Amino acid sequence: MDVEEFRRAAHDLVDWVADYRARVAELPVRAAVAPGEVAGALPKSPPEGPGDLKDFIAVLDEVVVPGLTHTQHPANFAWFPSNAALASVLGDIVAGGLGALGLSWQAAPALTEVEQVVCDWARQLCGLSARWSGTIGDGASTASLVALLVARERATGGSLRRGGLQGEPAPLTVYFSEDAHSSVTKAALLAGYGEGNLRLVTVRRPRRELDVDALAQLMAQDLAEGRRPAAIVTTAGTTLTTAFDPIGDICQLARDHGAYVHVDAAMAGSAMLLPECRHLFEGVEEVDSLCWNPHKWLGSVLETSLLYVKDPASLVSVMASDPSYLRSGRDGSVVQYRDWGLPLGRRFRALRLWALLSLEGAAALRARLRRDLANAQRLAALVSSTTGWELLAPVPLQTLCVRHVPAPLGAEDLDRHTLAWCEAVNSSGAAHLTPALLDGHWMVRVSIGAEPTEWRHIEQLWDLMREKAEGTGT
Amino acid sequence: MDVEEFRRAAHDLVDWVADYRARVAELPVRAAVAPGEVAGALPKSPPEGPGDLKDFIAVLDEVVVPGLTHTQHPANFAWFPSNAALASVLGDIVAGGLGALGLSWQAAPALTEVEQVVCDWARQLCGLSARWSGTIGDGASTASLVALLVARERATGGSLRRGGLQGEPAPLTVYFSEDAHSSVTKAALLAGYGEGNLRLVTVRRPRRELDVDALAQLMAQDLAEGRRPAAIVTTAGTTLTTAFDPIGDICQLARDHGAYVHVDAAMAGSAMLLPECRHLFEGVEEVDSLCWNPHKWLGSVLETSLLYVKDPASLVSVMASDPSYLRSGRDGSVVQYRDWGLPLGRRFRALRLWALLSLEGAAALRARLRRDLANAQRLAALVSSTTGWELLAPVPLQTLCVRHVPAPLGAEDLDRHTLAWCEAVNSSGAAHLTPALLDGHWMVRVSIGAEPTEWRHIEQLWDLMREKAEGTGT
Repeated sequence: MDVEEFRRAAHDLVDWVADYRARVAELPVRAAVAPGEVAGALPKSPPEGPGDLKDFIAVLDEVVVPGLTHTQHPANFAWFPSNAALASVLGDIVAGGLGALGLSWQAAPALTEVEQVVCDWARQLCGLSARWSGTIGDGASTASLVALLVARERATGGSLRRGGLQGEPAPLTVYFSEDAHSSVTKAALLAGYGEGNLRLVTVRRPRRELDVDALAQLMAQDLAEGRRPAAIVTTAGTTLTTAFDPIGDICQLARDHGAYVHVDAAMAGSAMLLPECRHLFEGVEEVDSLCWNPHKWLGSVLETSLLYVKDPASLVSVMASDPSYLRSGRDGSVVQYRDWGLPLGRRFRALRLWALLSLEGAAALRARLRRDLANAQRLAALVSSTTGWELLAPVPLQTLCVRHVPAPLGAEDLDRHTLAWCEAVNSSGAAHLTPALLDGHWMVRVSIGAEPTEWRHIEQLWDLMREKAEGTGT
Repeated sequence: MDVEEFRRAAHDLVDWVADYRARVAELPVRAAVAPGEVAGALPKSPPEGPGDLKDFIAVLDEVVVPGLTHTQHPANFAWFPSNAALASVLGDIVAGGLGALGLSWQAAPALTEVEQVVCDWARQLCGLSARWSGTIGDGASTASLVALLVARERATGGSLRRGGLQGEPAPLTVYFSEDAHSSVTKAALLAGYGEGNLRLVTVRRPRRELDVDALAQLMAQDLAEGRRPAAIVTTAGTTLTTAFDPIGDICQLARDHGAYVHVDAAMAGSAMLLPECRHLFEGVEEVDSLCWNPHKWLGSVLETSLLYVKDPASLVSVMASDPSYLRSGRDGSVVQYRDWGLPLGRRFRALRLWALLSLEGAAALRARLRRDLANAQRLAALVSSTTGWELLAPVPLQTLCVRHVPAPLGAEDLDRHTLAWCEAVNSSGAAHLTPALLDGHWMVRVSIGAEPTEWRHIEQLWDLMREKAEGTGT
């Protein structure tokens, strides 16, 4: 494909994207395809000859779009907001077009330095001190893994340079709340700690923050039994209920044991942009690392996950490699992001966030986050004041945990009712909600914060929820 | 930013990208900026108000482009080809625009199933049997880590469900050639094996493939001393000289010890598209996993790395997590890619490769790869037949390892001369080459295969190399 063919095709696809965004509100939110339906509609083998853009667009229209659950839909209240704001899409277009290769500073100085600058912009917006340095990774799962690898090496004084974890005399232990994301467990298992050395700390109901007294007890017991507390992963804004662990108290305990502290603020980190929300993160300056994904609520295109550390040297000591073909005369004086995480090469990830912040500006982003917080409070007031409806957790951010209790019901019947009305909402195509287990029983999460979601969409959702839950059918 | 503002801005940026690609050949290949120069030219803090697209484009023109080493330049012979073919950029534009969230099959069925289909297309193009299933990750470093984690769990019968690697009685060992990529060492260290349990196997000169006899000896010795050979990482196309390890022989040894075999074919995997190159991969059907990056020579936009496995169940058993908020009625009958690797969510990565294969067609891609192989042989003939010039390794693919020996020189003087003429080429801006250490001494890699590179660019390079190396200056 030559440049002029690309130019024509790209203009067509830009219009296609713009048209998609303009009509997304009219589409059913949840994909209605059966397993295998999309794959079955595509050719079994790749074409030998060149394809036509018209055919490509036809497949997008007829197969891909009906096969998607629309994250950018104003009635998307599922999982968590995963906004791909159009300003960020612009930066992504440039990144793909430039095709820069971030192997080292020398390979793409601007790729490295725009990442440094934009990580620092985001730091300032969050009110974090200048002690923090950031890098962009793909997501919070990877950030947790990186943090727990650094913690492992700190606790063992660099076992990777010796016999590895398998050469260690006493087991290392890792602590996190029972409401921490499953990716934290996964990261700890992959880092080699072993399930037997993970401590799921109970949460305090109803706020569901990690119980620091329980944590202290577990750590003391492990220590007494010859194990070594290596790391604590605290969650700022759990996936389940957006609960906030008491970071400051946890850090004090960690200090006593020399344990590493990582904060998983994947979704909720965006709330740090609002001074009125920063109290939720009290103590964050004391932790070792912090992950926050601007590709969630804030609106950067996906795979824009920030990992901040206060001591890059300890990160680099675990992650660095130094092949001769990547050496250059600049090595001492520049940041080499390949030594800050798992991948060697990276695309120009920073452009997505840089375009978002540059083109939207901080004030507009804060206004949008505040809109969502206000809408959540407004819906919470409606839920609380309506007979038969319950809010199951506080609403510190933009997620509500709700249940409809039509009459005194057994727990199993209530679960059936909850799943039934939630599925009725979802299969209507008019909105999308996520059911989740809270203390073993189903509730429904209403996660507000898709970029186009205004109060009227939430009003429509509430009518729909009431219709499906209170209607005769269920 | 509303849809119509986006439409206008995206059209402008598409033109900007097309113009960049049209003029990239006129730019100096290597960035000429000093450390900190790019960062210094950007605002220290994010703007409060919305920015203007004109200013955004001005920064791209004045700061970003001069701050990049141009991977898409026809005179880019550095590192390895990292093509972002324009057809693939089109797929990436759609991916950003759709903003689909690949958390689970249900969250984006088309994202999952297009990935399944395109991985199968690529498998067919490579002549791999239908026993292989693929997934798309960010790069070969991550693939090596994933493979070595799966190998660790296979060797220990699932130690992650017990005490982890730290609970293991006898150390696990990992084997790879001394010419394997540094990311293999990094992956093994992160997976917890420990440096003391890594075995860098010598290579046979001058072809530089892993010495199977040396491997057999090392494995036998480890076994005799109570260690457990867990994994072998073989390289198909080393970064240094594109050497190919004898995969078939290695697999036979691995079987004797029950060791896992991973193939790192990051760059060279594209050669599998050519039936005449498949003999280089002999035995590949017997390995456990294989990584190949279509984002290198083939031309998919970056962060399109394929990981193929024959037994997805063993991959899933290590990588799976199952949070309630991601459960759906479809779980049993669909692929959940979050259980195939490190990240939980993913963007619509498959569109980049799907657009490339659909719009270019297989025949055109094969023709381009063959062009590069032929160009490499033509340049190799020139180098070999020119007094004072040496080829230091066979040229099975598109990379030449060369040195200019002006007169009998001591090793240190020769190193100085090599680095000097290579730097003279690079600082001219007219071409970009990578120096690298071969058995402790510097040589220069000429890595052919940037998408726009024709024979005339290589002729110009050769003239430039001769001028700088043979000229009076050095």
